Amino acid sequence: MFKEAIELGLVISAYYSEHFFEGLETADRQTFTGIPYEVVSDGVFGSISETVTPQGVIAVVKMPEHDVEEILRNASKLILLENLQDPGNLGTIIRTAEAAGMDAVVLSKDSVDVYNPKVVRSTMGALFRKPVIYVDDLIGFVGLLNVKGFTTVATDLSASSDYANADYGEKTAVLIGNEGNGLTPEAVSAASLKVIIPMEGQVESLNAGVAAALMMYEIKRK
Amino acid sequence: MFKEAIELGLVISAYYSEHFFEGLETADRQTFTGIPYEVVSDGVFGSISETVTPQGVIAVVKMPEHDVEEILRNASKLILLENLQDPGNLGTIIRTAEAAGMDAVVLSKDSVDVYNPKVVRSTMGALFRKPVIYVDDLIGFVGLLNVKGFTTVATDLSASSDYANADYGEKTAVLIGNEGNGLTPEAVSAASLKVIIPMEGQVESLNAGVAAALMMYEIKRK
Repeated sequence: MFKEAIELGLVISAYYSEHFFEGLETADRQTFTGIPYEVVSDGVFGSISETVTPQGVIAVVKMPEHDVEEILRNASKLILLENLQDPGNLGTIIRTAEAAGMDAVVLSKDSVDVYNPKVVRSTMGALFRKPVIYVDDLIGFVGLLNVKGFTTVATDLSASSDYANADYGEKTAVLIGNEGNGLTPEAVSAASLKVIIPMEGQVESLNAGVAAALMMYEIKRK
Repeated sequence: MFKEAIELGLVISAYYSEHFFEGLETADRQTFTGIPYEVVSDGVFGSISETVTPQGVIAVVKMPEHDVEEILRNASKLILLENLQDPGNLGTIIRTAEAAGMDAVVLSKDSVDVYNPKVVRSTMGALFRKPVIYVDDLIGFVGLLNVKGFTTVATDLSASSDYANADYGEKTAVLIGNEGNGLTPEAVSAASLKVIIPMEGQVESLNAGVAAALMMYEIKRK
């Protein structure tokens, strides 16, 4: 992830642990010293890192800037997240969104911070490559997408249309809700298409990351 | 989950926090006092619980017993996990396995403990309903499944067959590997069918729970 951030010109400065810096191979050393950096003792490094077994690199990285207009102009496949709270879920969804060829990830403003360190790590670099934006009014944004010709899709347990048989159109936005409560009734109601992911047994709902993955890969397939 | 464990006759005894016990409604009180129980102060409860905001119930629950012979006799859809390490991933996979109609979950013995509290919580009750077993020799077990007429499926980045177009047969076992390293070459080699889940962008792999969900729902669909 760090090398990729350097390549993308996003790294402002970096801190290396002594142990890590001494072990660098020549090619890596050249890359890693080509940006402003500082080497710190392993003890200091351990106290500034948030992980138990840090890899030896901490970087100050620019947040990529994207806005709603840019996304509306260029995107034809979107994933919309309403009040998503779990950092691991968000990271996994951003990673899966890139793999499924989605153009951007849009979050309601009450969702978890995408720059939460757990989110950043679990995106495995996808955060540098896929636009992620927050919108103040997600329901309003869904309305805007409807006007712009998007099929806006909500998964809903009372829907009659199976997600595997639905027509998602040329431009599609998938809505995924909060881990505990799912989508709000307002979000379901704003969506132009409601589908159900069938479940056997006594399962009441799928994990948000799983539901998002099934929907995004279904749209990729279509 | 607790009510369901009582219904299934799995609860040996329970501990309730004072606050929780006082707030019980009549119907619940009847159920919750129909088993051996003890009410403890909120302070004591807080120190025996592993969560930051406990719900007020701790139970001693029987581990359901299942064995390989029973599973081989009755199952036609299996998910096999090799050296899976993340408790949240395992819990999500067990929950998704029930939703996708899999018959059982089989783990290599070096995988995370299914009775890890995080796993138990994230299964959302599916652990009580789906057989989960550990095998000493997962590769040998795959060989046995091949002999028994199962299509054993590995996801493999070098496979040429798209997971969405493959023929999984009547009896299917899906193999999912470790979060960091994927399946071992031995596991891939033992599988009778190799498929690829296509990925766009620069994503190197999918989260184990996501890959498992896509494969299990694809088999459900077929």
